Amino acid sequence: MARVFNFSAGPSMLPETVLRKAQEEMLDYQGTGMSVMEMSHRSSAFSKIIEEAELLLRDIMGIPDNFKVLFLQGGASTQFAMIPLNLFQKHKKADFIITGSWSKKAAAEARRYGDVNIVASSEDRNFSYIPKLSGNPFSRDADYVHITTNNTIYGTRFPGLPQTGDVPLVADMSSNILSEVYDVSRFGLIYAGAQKNIGPAGLTIVILHKDLIGNALDMTPTMLNYKTHADKDSLFNTPPCYCVYTAKLTFTWIKEQGGVAAIEKRNREKAGMLYDVLDNSKLYAGTAEQPSRSLMNVTFTLPTEELTAKCLQEAGKEGLVTLKGHRSVGGMRASIYNAMPVEGVQKLAQFLKRFESENS
Amino acid sequence: MARVFNFSAGPSMLPETVLRKAQEEMLDYQGTGMSVMEMSHRSSAFSKIIEEAELLLRDIMGIPDNFKVLFLQGGASTQFAMIPLNLFQKHKKADFIITGSWSKKAAAEARRYGDVNIVASSEDRNFSYIPKLSGNPFSRDADYVHITTNNTIYGTRFPGLPQTGDVPLVADMSSNILSEVYDVSRFGLIYAGAQKNIGPAGLTIVILHKDLIGNALDMTPTMLNYKTHADKDSLFNTPPCYCVYTAKLTFTWIKEQGGVAAIEKRNREKAGMLYDVLDNSKLYAGTAEQPSRSLMNVTFTLPTEELTAKCLQEAGKEGLVTLKGHRSVGGMRASIYNAMPVEGVQKLAQFLKRFESENS
Repeated sequence: MARVFNFSAGPSMLPETVLRKAQEEMLDYQGTGMSVMEMSHRSSAFSKIIEEAELLLRDIMGIPDNFKVLFLQGGASTQFAMIPLNLFQKHKKADFIITGSWSKKAAAEARRYGDVNIVASSEDRNFSYIPKLSGNPFSRDADYVHITTNNTIYGTRFPGLPQTGDVPLVADMSSNILSEVYDVSRFGLIYAGAQKNIGPAGLTIVILHKDLIGNALDMTPTMLNYKTHADKDSLFNTPPCYCVYTAKLTFTWIKEQGGVAAIEKRNREKAGMLYDVLDNSKLYAGTAEQPSRSLMNVTFTLPTEELTAKCLQEAGKEGLVTLKGHRSVGGMRASIYNAMPVEGVQKLAQFLKRFESENS
Repeated sequence: MARVFNFSAGPSMLPETVLRKAQEEMLDYQGTGMSVMEMSHRSSAFSKIIEEAELLLRDIMGIPDNFKVLFLQGGASTQFAMIPLNLFQKHKKADFIITGSWSKKAAAEARRYGDVNIVASSEDRNFSYIPKLSGNPFSRDADYVHITTNNTIYGTRFPGLPQTGDVPLVADMSSNILSEVYDVSRFGLIYAGAQKNIGPAGLTIVILHKDLIGNALDMTPTMLNYKTHADKDSLFNTPPCYCVYTAKLTFTWIKEQGGVAAIEKRNREKAGMLYDVLDNSKLYAGTAEQPSRSLMNVTFTLPTEELTAKCLQEAGKEGLVTLKGHRSVGGMRASIYNAMPVEGVQKLAQFLKRFESENS
């Protein structure tokens, strides 16, 4: 079958050039006579891969030298525990802004190891917006403030970053890392599962200020202590080598595209095309409030379940797949991560307009 | 370059048919129009992959119904913590047989959460043997007994399993899972990183008796609780999907080879070829004591560093690579996991004999 335009919320599309390179090198990586899957993580060939992956990521994200980059396993869900276990260094207290079920899960896990203060939440309107903060709502004695920069399920995104003063800002960036320019120095810690904008599931990237390393709670399992991995440059144990390799290919692709700024420009255009359709439609209703709209996940509903099912089915026939919305929101969701080509979004926009004209 | 015979201790060779299949399906898995890397872990295509992987593993290992199979992340090193956190249910005490640096690490991590009793150790002779046990040396109040069935670094293997009565036997099988027939019902829990006999690094397989699930210590992070993953059939969060897919391909390959019994027969022949060379040599000295010899890792030394270097270099020229011994033992190590073809071992055996005749 021809390649489809896959609007999955994650794992999701990878750049075709990345897949073709991986395919080409599958049995023989650059003359080594072996696959990257078969390579010792202590070999010179793999050392070069992981070092280059880090350098590329530092380059395209502009990561300052006083930040450490870690290639870990376990997904964002493991970070939900690692963050409090490592960052509850003084008052065992964290401030959370709750913007969806993932930030709720992160807060619930942190609460097991200390105090959690909910600074703001948008649960009152099914997480359809990012709460506005007034004054300085953060606790003075918080060890960190946690946000989820993009909310895959609800199609929202922080339009700006909260001012947290001296308190480290911790961000779950799983669904929008590398999709727009962020000033890394504004954060204490950024974490992201790879499976949306980076590579295959099984790799978790953590970027954290060096000052946050080395004061984990006593009970912290060795593998959940950032220091364990920081001291060994992510080679304390065998890392998810093939995921790191694929991530490196994606970072190279981002650089070739002109870097994150160029990617952001294209992402704004892509999202703009779909929001234009929604804003000029009598059939589709966007579920996220306008200033909080995500660049990655465009969520919308149709008037009836029947129309939704029909729309999904007809889209599928045109190679526009995995558009079903999450059950918490219903309707449809188009996830348009970095690797979704402009053509895919154009085709979807055209399809949606045609479907509306045929069903009004 | 032609494919080499890669004697790496891990990550290590995969069956070429597995790599070719992965290569072939890289851009389009069975007509879905997408790579397995791009597929939602909730999709029907991936559900089928993970279900088939489990069924195949249950089939080839003969896993009883009262055991749960989990596909996790974090490597054996994460299990070093998960095991005590989940199994210290009664007396917070475990018995360990120490047969190398990995079992030492496992014991050290367990000691952070309870009492560890060292039943036996072979550290006195640099772990060159598996200790013999007399009588019943195990603690009556131990929550589990821990062994490492095969010791990659030292080239040793448990020739039989200890009798632990009612106390669950826990085995790190990272370096010899699926290489020989084990009666799973003898164990309480088996764990293994995938990167030797199964697939790419980043997947950890845990097979455990259902009775051991559900009584984790209070402090246990959600992601380190077996119950979390058991309740959701390893889909609590996004699993390392591509590793699971590759594992499935390897399990299929094992079945096609005639199952684990046929693989064991071939492994015994392969190891026999190399031990024959060592036993008839005046140049090479095996480092593991005879009854404890590994079927997976054949470790041996040469009289001088210079000869070792020369041997490694000349082997490399013939496409026999990654034969350097671990620094704790020195010399050379041939890791001959399931995927190492008989031809690779034959070629190495012939090379070693020729090298000896040329250098005596």
